[in-house]
Amino acid sequence: MSARPGLRVTSPPPLVLERCRELTEPALRAAVRTLHPWPRRMASFSLGWCAADGTPTAADGGKGIRRALAVLGAEAVGAPEEAAVAAAVSVELVHTFSLVHDDVMDGDERRRHRDSTWKAFGTGPAVLAGDALFALAVETLAGADGAHGAAAVRHLTAALRELVRGQADDLLFESRPWTGPEAVRVAEYESMAAGKTGSLLACALALGPVLAGASPLRVDALAEAGRHLGTAFQAVDDLLGVWGDPAATGKPVHGDLLRGKKTLPVLAALAAPGPAARSLAALLGSGAPLDAAAARRAAALVEEAGGREATAAEARRHAEAAQRCLAGAPFAPGAMGELVALVDFLLERTL
Amino acid sequence: MSARPGLRVTSPPPLVLERCRELTEPALRAAVRTLHPWPRRMASFSLGWCAADGTPTAADGGKGIRRALAVLGAEAVGAPEEAAVAAAVSVELVHTFSLVHDDVMDGDERRRHRDSTWKAFGTGPAVLAGDALFALAVETLAGADGAHGAAAVRHLTAALRELVRGQADDLLFESRPWTGPEAVRVAEYESMAAGKTGSLLACALALGPVLAGASPLRVDALAEAGRHLGTAFQAVDDLLGVWGDPAATGKPVHGDLLRGKKTLPVLAALAAPGPAARSLAALLGSGAPLDAAAARRAAALVEEAGGREATAAEARRHAEAAQRCLAGAPFAPGAMGELVALVDFLLERTL
Repeated sequence: MSARPGLRVTSPPPLVLERCRELTEPALRAAVRTLHPWPRRMASFSLGWCAADGTPTAADGGKGIRRALAVLGAEAVGAPEEAAVAAAVSVELVHTFSLVHDDVMDGDERRRHRDSTWKAFGTGPAVLAGDALFALAVETLAGADGAHGAAAVRHLTAALRELVRGQADDLLFESRPWTGPEAVRVAEYESMAAGKTGSLLACALALGPVLAGASPLRVDALAEAGRHLGTAFQAVDDLLGVWGDPAATGKPVHGDLLRGKKTLPVLAALAAPGPAARSLAALLGSGAPLDAAAARRAAALVEEAGGREATAAEARRHAEAAQRCLAGAPFAPGAMGELVALVDFLLERTL
Repeated sequence: MSARPGLRVTSPPPLVLERCRELTEPALRAAVRTLHPWPRRMASFSLGWCAADGTPTAADGGKGIRRALAVLGAEAVGAPEEAAVAAAVSVELVHTFSLVHDDVMDGDERRRHRDSTWKAFGTGPAVLAGDALFALAVETLAGADGAHGAAAVRHLTAALRELVRGQADDLLFESRPWTGPEAVRVAEYESMAAGKTGSLLACALALGPVLAGASPLRVDALAEAGRHLGTAFQAVDDLLGVWGDPAATGKPVHGDLLRGKKTLPVLAALAAPGPAARSLAALLGSGAPLDAAAARRAAALVEEAGGREATAAEARRHAEAAQRCLAGAPFAPGAMGELVALVDFLLERTL
């Protein structure tokens, strides 16, 4: 597979994911326990802790990437453990809120191999559960020890502003054509991805340091690294959305093509010169939904026109930019090593 | 009409509403202008500033009660104008967020004599607009001048926790029966109303003072007064929902009865002894939707069983409790006079 970003794997990263999960899970569960029983049930379901009927599960609640980034960001500036935990809990709650509401907005019925929250509980209750998670995330930060609570909340709301911008653009892209003057340009797509995925990863890395009063130099370096990581992850996700193994992604083969979703591989292919791009434009230009055979043909044309390689190159470019950001400020070497290893692991997800 | 709470009208309150609107409107509009164009359009629509297509309107954007309470609460403790404005903007944004999301949850198609936001823009976009308003509210507070931003955010999130609790209970009440051991009790209803309506009014009155670092004695007195006011307003709303003039409320006559909504007049009537309560229980007990004739009969039985008077008494009781709270701490007399006049006005809404 040619889409591997150019980072070396230096250690088995699940160890750091596990360590950060153990460090933050008690506080996360304690925070969720304070909710009203009904949003608590829905929040617990969304976090992968229980089935819709409340039965505890060992289901896949996500890899816990954001909370690991939050802990490592805090450790990278020598922040106290309380700051790391509060930042991690807040970021994980915001991430879960955004997934719950995004699934409502996108009409996605499946998430992590089971029903999405709105599918399991209804749209209205899912909106309420998301609101409860959002409020709890803000409350967690504002209630953290120390003098920098308001600055941390400002940092979080700035990320949310970016998240809303990215989500709004993504929703608006749906109704725009594949070709012609109204078509979504690659640069617009990249800006959307930076907002929708980059903002929260930037926030995850920088929030603990903000809470601990770290210098703007280090906060900005971590935030910028996170923004690049988010863009890289989004590119990898886009590759997985077309060429990913359904057994691993839990989504159908060529899923994004069947749904007519505007993703980077397709947009980059359409923007390329040559006959494959023209054939792809003709195939998609009608606006009619693709069947399985047409989606297979579209995937081949995207690859032939260079969309797959351009997307992989985008992931590599942003991963390298993230590394440069991290190298540009003084951080604790231990946390930095774990961070680089984690990023390697995440960007090498099996395609 | 017997539902008038026992407060005297001492001055024409629209003056204070107008003054507080003029004081806070520029900052509110400036905050909304910073949003992405699409959520900005939806937020402006929700605030009554424009039609769905963006055309500016002089439509009814609500009376601006919450922002007036925020300004008066701040003035009552001698807080600087900036604190009053930031608190008012934040509270107005949170209120608008809660209306937008509540209409999604309740499936309400009409709000202030026109389409609700989800009806005009779609459910997904309305969820996004609400999220954007919520984030903007928090950002406004956390970015306010002074040392008490984190405390103010904590105060706001505590109110949101109450709001979520009230909304969750309200949604759960829908699926509970009118009669029998599972029926909603009056005490449960009152607790729901305190959360759903009281929390945000408590927050409105107390937020400016918190932002300005006022003493807990004064903050708590204002918050407690706001909570009682909210409960009183909810009782008046419940009366309007059954006996209100459709021309004034913009809702159908006996609307809450036709929708099978569990409101205080009905619950209080069902809890009363006597033949009218028993007839009402028989009428509602089947669970079948009421037609216009049955709703008219139900309204008469509710009144006969004492539900209307019990609800009016509840409004009076809480309005008086609010006055006692305000009398129990030292406040600036000018603001306090305007506040009492405003409350009088609001509780005397034409029935």
